[in-house]
Amino acid sequence: MRWLKFTAAGKTSWGLVEGDKVTTVTGDPLGEWTKTSQTHALGDVKIELPLVPRTFYCVGLNYLKHLKEAADKAGTVPDIPGRPEIGYRAQNALIAHDENVVIPASATEKIHYEGELVVVIGRKAKHLTEAGAMDCVFGYTIGNDVSERTWQKADRGLWRSKNADTFKPMGPWIETSVDLATMETAIRVNGKETGRFRTNDMIFGIVPFLVELTKYFTLWPGDVIWMGTDGASPDLKDGDVVEIDVTGIGTLRNRFVKEKA
Amino acid sequence: MRWLKFTAAGKTSWGLVEGDKVTTVTGDPLGEWTKTSQTHALGDVKIELPLVPRTFYCVGLNYLKHLKEAADKAGTVPDIPGRPEIGYRAQNALIAHDENVVIPASATEKIHYEGELVVVIGRKAKHLTEAGAMDCVFGYTIGNDVSERTWQKADRGLWRSKNADTFKPMGPWIETSVDLATMETAIRVNGKETGRFRTNDMIFGIVPFLVELTKYFTLWPGDVIWMGTDGASPDLKDGDVVEIDVTGIGTLRNRFVKEKA
Repeated sequence: MRWLKFTAAGKTSWGLVEGDKVTTVTGDPLGEWTKTSQTHALGDVKIELPLVPRTFYCVGLNYLKHLKEAADKAGTVPDIPGRPEIGYRAQNALIAHDENVVIPASATEKIHYEGELVVVIGRKAKHLTEAGAMDCVFGYTIGNDVSERTWQKADRGLWRSKNADTFKPMGPWIETSVDLATMETAIRVNGKETGRFRTNDMIFGIVPFLVELTKYFTLWPGDVIWMGTDGASPDLKDGDVVEIDVTGIGTLRNRFVKEKA
Repeated sequence: MRWLKFTAAGKTSWGLVEGDKVTTVTGDPLGEWTKTSQTHALGDVKIELPLVPRTFYCVGLNYLKHLKEAADKAGTVPDIPGRPEIGYRAQNALIAHDENVVIPASATEKIHYEGELVVVIGRKAKHLTEAGAMDCVFGYTIGNDVSERTWQKADRGLWRSKNADTFKPMGPWIETSVDLATMETAIRVNGKETGRFRTNDMIFGIVPFLVELTKYFTLWPGDVIWMGTDGASPDLKDGDVVEIDVTGIGTLRNRFVKEKA
């Protein structure tokens, strides 16, 4: 099932997407819901942010090829994580599909995308085992972990570099059924492909993360875990359109615009 | 005004505290509300977490004496922040006044408290000026930024060390009117004072943080900013009771209990 949060005729609701049609649902996919008889053409509705997570988890370094390439370039040995460790992002930064990423006036030209698979948690979970871990997953969406690399080097932590308003596009919808083994993530800038990797080719996959995190944390319905990215981004500039395509989910598209000083 | 989230007779509501009495309010202090005629004795109600912030901001190093003492001990020069920078904490870790901090079975003995003033945001704000900054503040509460120092050194980021379940007690209530200039924070372990500092003796105060943050972030009603701590904590052990007292707000009290392995 493909769950879309949308607005039509001034009303925001959940809906189920089939082809280019969305059927309005009352209630909430993470709770109780009922399908109605009302439908819209997908092109006629405003796509909204699927949800604001209670806790916003994000994996840093999680793709070997990316780490290896970076280390090769620097002439160093890759610092490969020895265990699944997590970071956090800020809810203020979230925006929906087709909304604009606003590059702050004070930012440098080092604005980069990171195309990521996003795991959406469906039920409260702690102390998950390997066998049962995936039962807490509701579905999947796509995230763009936009970063200002100059700030990333200069700041304590990642406060501005990854969490400025609009730096976390997420969407367009939540897909409940995917085939992790065969998925690919492809990224395009202004229609031209700039990156492609096997989505599940992670150093630590979803199950190890769920097991490790829930040793310490309770996951709640609506929490999201952004799973990291592979490859590198060109510097993005005013007017660029970034599309992140993940097999079986869809395409997250956002235009980057420079804030007026 | 002193706003308390509480449960009585199975019902959770907001209330206004006067002395040892709480008057039930319908609605929400950050929106519309109406005082009812129903009252309870404060001692008869279960005190709840005041709110779950949309974004959970937390200042790291923000008290000069603390930085200087640590540097003196290490024989180094204090690394004093040159500008207000912010971090994040995880919502999963929040608990209420009088709920137990559960020390994970795998944690070391290096469990420390950090007594902090918490700023609660009352309205949406961006690009605040120095003159208008405080208008977005709804009130103040108290936070205990519990830390596992061994994990803090070993982990990438602060994921477990500061964000394990129950590591973020916050409360007991939100006080809308305080006198920042005269406030003191006092911390007691099992009734014995182990720390005391002037609450507003910060390297960067509330106004500089609000101005700097809102250059990049939109603050939302219910967001919280934990303002950092001074002094050091002894190692806390199973059964210890930590009280953090802030003049004009009240006392946040939590027992520390060790998880059974």
